[in-house]
Amino acid sequence: MAFSTCQMLRSALSTLHSNLPASSVQAHCDGPCGVYDPASARGSAEAVVSMTKKLLELQPPSGNDPSAWAAYNNTFSRFVAIKEEQAQQTKNELLILWTDYFKPEHLATFPNLHDIFWKAAKLCSACKVNIDQSKADELIKAVEAIHTMFWKSKGRNDAWVRAS
Amino acid sequence: MAFSTCQMLRSALSTLHSNLPASSVQAHCDGPCGVYDPASARGSAEAVVSMTKKLLELQPPSGNDPSAWAAYNNTFSRFVAIKEEQAQQTKNELLILWTDYFKPEHLATFPNLHDIFWKAAKLCSACKVNIDQSKADELIKAVEAIHTMFWKSKGRNDAWVRAS
Amino acid sequence: MAFSTCQMLRSALSTLHSNLPASSVQAHCDGPCGVYDPASARGSAEAVVSMTKKLLELQPPSGNDPSAWAAYNNTFSRFVAIKEEQAQQTKNELLILWTDYFKPEHLATFPNLHDIFWKAAKLCSACKVNIDQSKADELIKAVEAIHTMFWKSKGRNDAWVRAS
Amino acid sequence: MAFSTCQMLRSALSTLHSNLPASSVQAHCDGPCGVYDPASARGSAEAVVSMTKKLLELQPPSGNDPSAWAAYNNTFSRFVAIKEEQAQQTKNELLILWTDYFKPEHLATFPNLHDIFWKAAKLCSACKVNIDQSKADELIKAVEAIHTMFWKSKGRNDAWVRAS
Amino acid sequence: MAFSTCQMLRSALSTLHSNLPASSVQAHCDGPCGVYDPASARGSAEAVVSMTKKLLELQPPSGNDPSAWAAYNNTFSRFVAIKEEQAQQTKNELLILWTDYFKPEHLATFPNLHDIFWKAAKLCSACKVNIDQSKADELIKAVEAIHTMFWKSKGRNDAWVRAS
Amino acid sequence: MAFSTCQMLRSALSTLHSNLPASSVQAHCDGPCGVYDPASARGSAEAVVSMTKKLLELQPPSGNDPSAWAAYNNTFSRFVAIKEEQAQQTKNELLILWTDYFKPEHLATFPNLHDIFWKAAKLCSACKVNIDQSKADELIKAVEAIHTMFWKSKGRNDAWVRAS
Repeated sequence: MAFSTCQMLRSALSTLHSNLPASSVQAHCDGPCGVYDPASARGSAEAVVSMTKKLLELQPPSGNDPSAWAAYNNTFSRFVAIKEEQAQQTKNELLILWTDYFKPEHLATFPNLHDIFWKAAKLCSACKVNIDQSKADELIKAVEAIHTMFWKSKGRNDAWVRAS
Repeated sequence: MAFSTCQMLRSALSTLHSNLPASSVQAHCDGPCGVYDPASARGSAEAVVSMTKKLLELQPPSGNDPSAWAAYNNTFSRFVAIKEEQAQQTKNELLILWTDYFKPEHLATFPNLHDIFWKAAKLCSACKVNIDQSKADELIKAVEAIHTMFWKSKGRNDAWVRAS
Repeated sequence: MAFSTCQMLRSALSTLHSNLPASSVQAHCDGPCGVYDPASARGSAEAVVSMTKKLLELQPPSGNDPSAWAAYNNTFSRFVAIKEEQAQQTKNELLILWTDYFKPEHLATFPNLHDIFWKAAKLCSACKVNIDQSKADELIKAVEAIHTMFWKSKGRNDAWVRAS
Repeated sequence: MAFSTCQMLRSALSTLHSNLPASSVQAHCDGPCGVYDPASARGSAEAVVSMTKKLLELQPPSGNDPSAWAAYNNTFSRFVAIKEEQAQQTKNELLILWTDYFKPEHLATFPNLHDIFWKAAKLCSACKVNIDQSKADELIKAVEAIHTMFWKSKGRNDAWVRAS
Repeated sequence: MAFSTCQMLRSALSTLHSNLPASSVQAHCDGPCGVYDPASARGSAEAVVSMTKKLLELQPPSGNDPSAWAAYNNTFSRFVAIKEEQAQQTKNELLILWTDYFKPEHLATFPNLHDIFWKAAKLCSACKVNIDQSKADELIKAVEAIHTMFWKSKGRNDAWVRAS
Repeated sequence: MAFSTCQMLRSALSTLHSNLPASSVQAHCDGPCGVYDPASARGSAEAVVSMTKKLLELQPPSGNDPSAWAAYNNTFSRFVAIKEEQAQQTKNELLILWTDYFKPEHLATFPNLHDIFWKAAKLCSACKVNIDQSKADELIKAVEAIHTMFWKSKGRNDAWVRAS
């Protein structure tokens, strides 16, 4: 086998680096372990709240100016798309925490772990399907609960600070 | 308010359509309800198995031809990227089923639902992090189990047929 | 040159592995050869049919409740976006089969290969541009024809089974 | 039906705008008709040529400095990924022309239309799978041929000018 | 009546509400104004630092076990790809702040605004092109400076807290 | 010997070629240096102009045919999404030129470089937020100015030729 073609030379060389430290890489996750942070999910969820609020406040023009109506429809359509994208982004960020950061040993401390994430993910979908301020508020609360659980699991107590 | 601009006319008209049937739209999911299908996850998982196998079989050139080495490295690097992409795709497809298709009422029939999906998602990550045939095989088995559970929940019994 | 830096050693070593078997990797496609499957295109096309149907059934609220109208517009806008995305996805999946799976030798068996894929791709576009149930139905039929052609080319006869 | 709820009013109003010009929108493509341009495919194909050339010229470090080797491997791996991405982008751009710009009436003037695009798409794949200067050069020639065919179909004769 | 379907009808009604206040929507940005937050750029930049560090620490196996080498190459290749992706993500996040959040009036307070962002963006590229701990550290410092500038512009003084 | 697997062996050989010239690779950009081209930004900006024009010309149906209204809303919603996507794409293409192609030494020749790109990027956002022909025309002019500046920096004088 080709992999063994260097065998002789390598075994000759192996004493040269037999003292090298074992790799310290703990590739137990999708990649950049140690940099998980619920801040991204918080940012997206805040955007969902904001877009939901703006959509509910958006008022159609009172006149019949075609360009005013086009502007209104343009804005409505864009806000729905941004809400959709940010809700999906929130879901993605949360599921990375669930599938990659949290591990079986966390279940002892957080026995409702799965249920918390499942409901939070379903709230993301609900915020897409509807323009519903109370669902958006529930989503923010769910993300805050996950923020608290996350930092507790790391022995930290980071404050929940919103950008908006 | 603009929303009330048509109010008068609308109230005048309201008796005309007070008998209209309620909307039958059941937008209870992210979108195309009724078209969930574990076949996409199966396809991606099969690709993970295939790329893992090809990576393990890939042999470096025995000589010192630079272009043969460049070709080998090009192929190795591409196969890792495709494995990564397909494992992520498998995870995405499975999580859509978990977050959107399965609903609280399914927990009675499938009490281990969360755990099954959590472990399957973690297998997707394991297939990225390693080139491990046994993990890839476990992933396929996990997707097959989800396939069976999914069709059972719909009262169907679709066969598990692989493309490769 | 750096490529020749190991030359001396390698030529000394080359006799050691001059009998190694040639690499068996047949990287004649974009990647995971052998895992092509029209099931993904079927799934997306079914979603196009479903969203088209839902859009045609979607009824505006009869009253003047602002939140009912916002909900209606939110849903309409989302369904259009999902239809667009799924039609594009169907096109992508079909074009992967056309450009990567099918090879010159298949033209003898399927002389209309190009035309079949071209028309199917144009149907994907037609389903985006319009909300047209008959175009969506034509698309499903085109995908079914490609499914049959695909499995015939592999000497299999897999049944056409829809998820919805 | 809800759509008919405004019927009476609309028919009363219809005489008010019966003289409006019919919509001039010819939505016969995926979207921005009239802005097709093979320049994007040219740009991506030039990048494929450039990355292929750079990969072939890339020389491993002659010494054993770990950071030099890491830098070399980092660059090799990135260039493969960029080549992959740009080849895929070239394929995407070409297939948009094939599926959306060209129409049945063009087949009379360009009877080999399908074959030209099929081979160009397969060259994109070949440029991914290999680090092959001659395939990259063939791809550029194929894109140039499509450039010429495209502008001929529009009655223009735009020069083929490369950016690099 | 759909909001987008009654434009003509409203024309007839427009005299009824010609005194309605103008729309209060201030869509002066790409979308979710008020939810800008440098936390996302911080998270990505931290991942760049982490992947750079892991790549520099990653040691090839000392023996000639084929699967150990395949694992090493798999990990190296993945870490480069993750570093690339996170550096691009950092660049994207920073450029959103530069193009959408900051406005001409901020130039009085931050006369070096353009230069700060330009150099930070170029640091993102440098972190892709190299595996360079000092560049990654410079990037973190640049993001911290932007964090401070951002919150100062909003009259807040949020602490710079890293997740890792 | 794999290029990435013989690092240690090479350590032993390093005295043999310690005088080899340093690598000539100048990876000073994100990747495919030398293939920058403002043609991609021009293409996207032309699409923004085209979609803006089509949106302004789009007229709601005069009657009350439900499917005509659905078709109108489908088209309006799609055109907004395409305008959004193409404006974002224009922004992306311009920012690649700003962050990767242009370098500190260009500031002497183009002292307003930052301001030109900042305003062009903000025009991309303005074209999303509004359906405004004059903003779209300004965007095209800004892209033309960047085209001229770009080719001047390369000592070329390429003509500005639009595809539509």
